[in-house]
Amino acid sequence: MNKEFEKTFVNDLEELFLWRRDVKSFSNTTIDQDTLERLMSFACKAPSVGNSQPWRFMLINTLETRQAIFEEFKRENKQAAERYKKETKQEYLKLKLEGLLEAPSHLAVYSETTPLRGKGLGRSTMPETVRYSTVLAIGQLWLHARALGLGLGWVSILNPKNINQILQAPKNWDLIAYLCLGYQN
Amino acid sequence: MNKEFEKTFVNDLEELFLWRRDVKSFSNTTIDQDTLERLMSFACKAPSVGNSQPWRFMLINTLETRQAIFEEFKRENKQAAERYKKETKQEYLKLKLEGLLEAPSHLAVYSETTPLRGKGLGRSTMPETVRYSTVLAIGQLWLHARALGLGLGWVSILNPKNINQILQAPKNWDLIAYLCLGYQN
Repeated sequence: MNKEFEKTFVNDLEELFLWRRDVKSFSNTTIDQDTLERLMSFACKAPSVGNSQPWRFMLINTLETRQAIFEEFKRENKQAAERYKKETKQEYLKLKLEGLLEAPSHLAVYSETTPLRGKGLGRSTMPETVRYSTVLAIGQLWLHARALGLGLGWVSILNPKNINQILQAPKNWDLIAYLCLGYQN
Repeated sequence: MNKEFEKTFVNDLEELFLWRRDVKSFSNTTIDQDTLERLMSFACKAPSVGNSQPWRFMLINTLETRQAIFEEFKRENKQAAERYKKETKQEYLKLKLEGLLEAPSHLAVYSETTPLRGKGLGRSTMPETVRYSTVLAIGQLWLHARALGLGLGWVSILNPKNINQILQAPKNWDLIAYLCLGYQN
């Protein structure tokens, strides 16, 4: 048996797809812990290869750590700018690519490299589906956050090795995404 | 300015997260072309690194091709079974892992390796975010399909090289997922 969804819901869902944004500007309103836990708990309902549920979430609360991540971003972004020629480089440097200092919550999303759960089911030929499962969880969290009035920004201009060191991540975890979360201005 | 979503919508969205399944059994009802195009068109609204929109969709319509994919699955699945010890292997072989022959529509989802769009923005340190963007599009399509009463099954026990050959995929496309779509029994 399956639940049937109303047409009005489908319309709203399509609106949600259209209104979802990569957010780089946040107000200083904090997100309550219940909301953060609700988001993570529903993200865990995402599909995963062989039901391996490889996602691991790390909430970054200290200002010191968030500042360290921001410094990492600045360094990598400067290097990224060097890849462009003169005029494009000028344009590039004008872009606001993240809201790391403003966002009240940071969420690092990791994927366990070889999760025990699932006993390897479904990932013999395409082992990358483990990491893809974690990406599906992030996509779900992104839509859910937007529906709850929260903005999310995915900061990809970071060197995973350095981030792992700052966050003291376990060695068998792969960094998939570094996310900023907050209410929008 | 942002659209605000009603509480009833959020509740239904959370129900959708809970009702989404990996579907392996389909009725023989065909999906009309408009619905397939609607799904793909909204999947294209997914977030992508540097707005690179790397996703490429290939609908598989001929029975001959679908049969060839099924043969590939059978071969790879037999090999995957060999990885398990006696009893687990017996259990494994009893599992129904796909609905390739029943599903009225197959959709191969590719990611362009180095999309021109986005000029490389955001993917200097984590180039895998290009493929992750395509995964986000698949996640969106999965939820959308379910809301429309359609089931989706992700078949991962396939060798990408062989699938690319069968589908004659361009060389600069990476196979991300092979999906079965259809109404459920």
